Amino acid sequence: MSVLASLVDALGNGSIEVVDLTAPLSSDTPLLELPPEFGQTARFELEEISRYDDRGPAWYWNNFRTGEHTGTHFDAPNHWVTGKDLADIGSVTPSAFVAPAVVLDVTAEVEQDPHFLVERSHLDAFQDEHGPFPAGGWLLCRTGWSSRTTQEEMLNNTDVGPSSPGMSPECARWVAEESVLQGIGVETVGTDAGAAHSFDPPFPCHSFLLGNDKYGLAQLQNLDRLPATGAVVIAPPLKIVGGSGSPVRVVALVERS
Amino acid sequence: MSVLASLVDALGNGSIEVVDLTAPLSSDTPLLELPPEFGQTARFELEEISRYDDRGPAWYWNNFRTGEHTGTHFDAPNHWVTGKDLADIGSVTPSAFVAPAVVLDVTAEVEQDPHFLVERSHLDAFQDEHGPFPAGGWLLCRTGWSSRTTQEEMLNNTDVGPSSPGMSPECARWVAEESVLQGIGVETVGTDAGAAHSFDPPFPCHSFLLGNDKYGLAQLQNLDRLPATGAVVIAPPLKIVGGSGSPVRVVALVERS
Ligand SMILES: [Mn+2]
Ligand SMILES: [Mn+2]
Repeated sequence: MSVLASLVDALGNGSIEVVDLTAPLSSDTPLLELPPEFGQTARFELEEISRYDDRGPAWYWNNFRTGEHTGTHFDAPNHWVTGKDLADIGSVTPSAFVAPAVVLDVTAEVEQDPHFLVERSHLDAFQDEHGPFPAGGWLLCRTGWSSRTTQEEMLNNTDVGPSSPGMSPECARWVAEESVLQGIGVETVGTDAGAAHSFDPPFPCHSFLLGNDKYGLAQLQNLDRLPATGAVVIAPPLKIVGGSGSPVRVVALVERS
Repeated sequence: MSVLASLVDALGNGSIEVVDLTAPLSSDTPLLELPPEFGQTARFELEEISRYDDRGPAWYWNNFRTGEHTGTHFDAPNHWVTGKDLADIGSVTPSAFVAPAVVLDVTAEVEQDPHFLVERSHLDAFQDEHGPFPAGGWLLCRTGWSSRTTQEEMLNNTDVGPSSPGMSPECARWVAEESVLQGIGVETVGTDAGAAHSFDPPFPCHSFLLGNDKYGLAQLQNLDRLPATGAVVIAPPLKIVGGSGSPVRVVALVERS
């Protein structure tokens, strides 16, 4: 049987499950906040066009306004100045949308310290245990942060500013420049730690990954439902011509035994 | 090797290709037009937030406004009054997002007649030649219509109104009520023919399919790059809470020999 016929069979008999990794998109969806002197990503808002009424007797539908980087979303290389001559979201190669994923679980560490940063040593230990990262794959950082569903909990502002986990500059540089990975996925509103404006360089995940033609996935959920290795992540962003990112429905294919 | 490991291997060595079936999303994207007394789906519009400037020195990003049913999009059952108590776009089961597809080629017929309608007899002939439709699969109707990239060409208004191909009421009823398919995909701006307001019932694809908890995909491209059988369509809509549809990036997995 061909690989695709086997895939269809396995989806049909439940031996491969489709797991939804996406946060619900509504006006309650938490979103990134920058200092007030900067432009801001828009809250998701529906505008009803008709609802089986005079405006459309047999149909219900909406228009909506949102940000490219609102809710669960995909960062394209041109989102960052380091990648400004690289792909926009409409030109990212479709082969990136179906890719293997590994899941690094640092929930225990983040429970102890909301400023926890993933370091090279965590990636080394993961590979020692599970084997090398898959070529063109995603590194998904499972922090437990997606249990925070309100704006306040998600940003976690403290007296030192937004306090959420992320990745150290050296680790981000390694993922971008030396690893075979195509990008990282996180549960927070952006790929960088809440305090990353103060890092050297600032926002190292954005700066290094996007500058190296790699990608980011933010505000993922249900990472606890994925195995450490072996899942396939499906993340096809909208084909926004010249866009810098896109809200995206992210799902994973997971083999059940 | 597991099915997913085989899939990753095949994607890596190019024996499975990811084919983009999506129209570019911009202010030029053609869109459905209803009579002026009804509400209308919004044209896609980007609003720049910053572009490596004072509004955001190291980053470029946008907000945007669009319609749930603008460009390449997914129709949820609650889009139509016949499905008003069925799934909204945020509740469609994720297993629907990865599904086998068959491609019915009626480009020659449509070239002769822009009002061409797919009939039961075409589906019977297809199954006689290629075997039964796949359970939970998509029927993609390849009409060649996606070569029309402007608003005017896409709607094709003539002295009898919008003139574009579709499916006959009896055929739509059969797909909805009797077939094992989960829905249909088309190259036009909606699943119904341009003249379908005058059919009995009006808009039979919307009325029958959505009322039977099935789905629609509109404004697909590149269907000529798919085999008649054996492709897997990936179409994960945005998780819009309570929405009736969603712009979507549709890709297909195709086995190359
Ligand atoms: Mn982002
Ligand atoms: Mn529609």
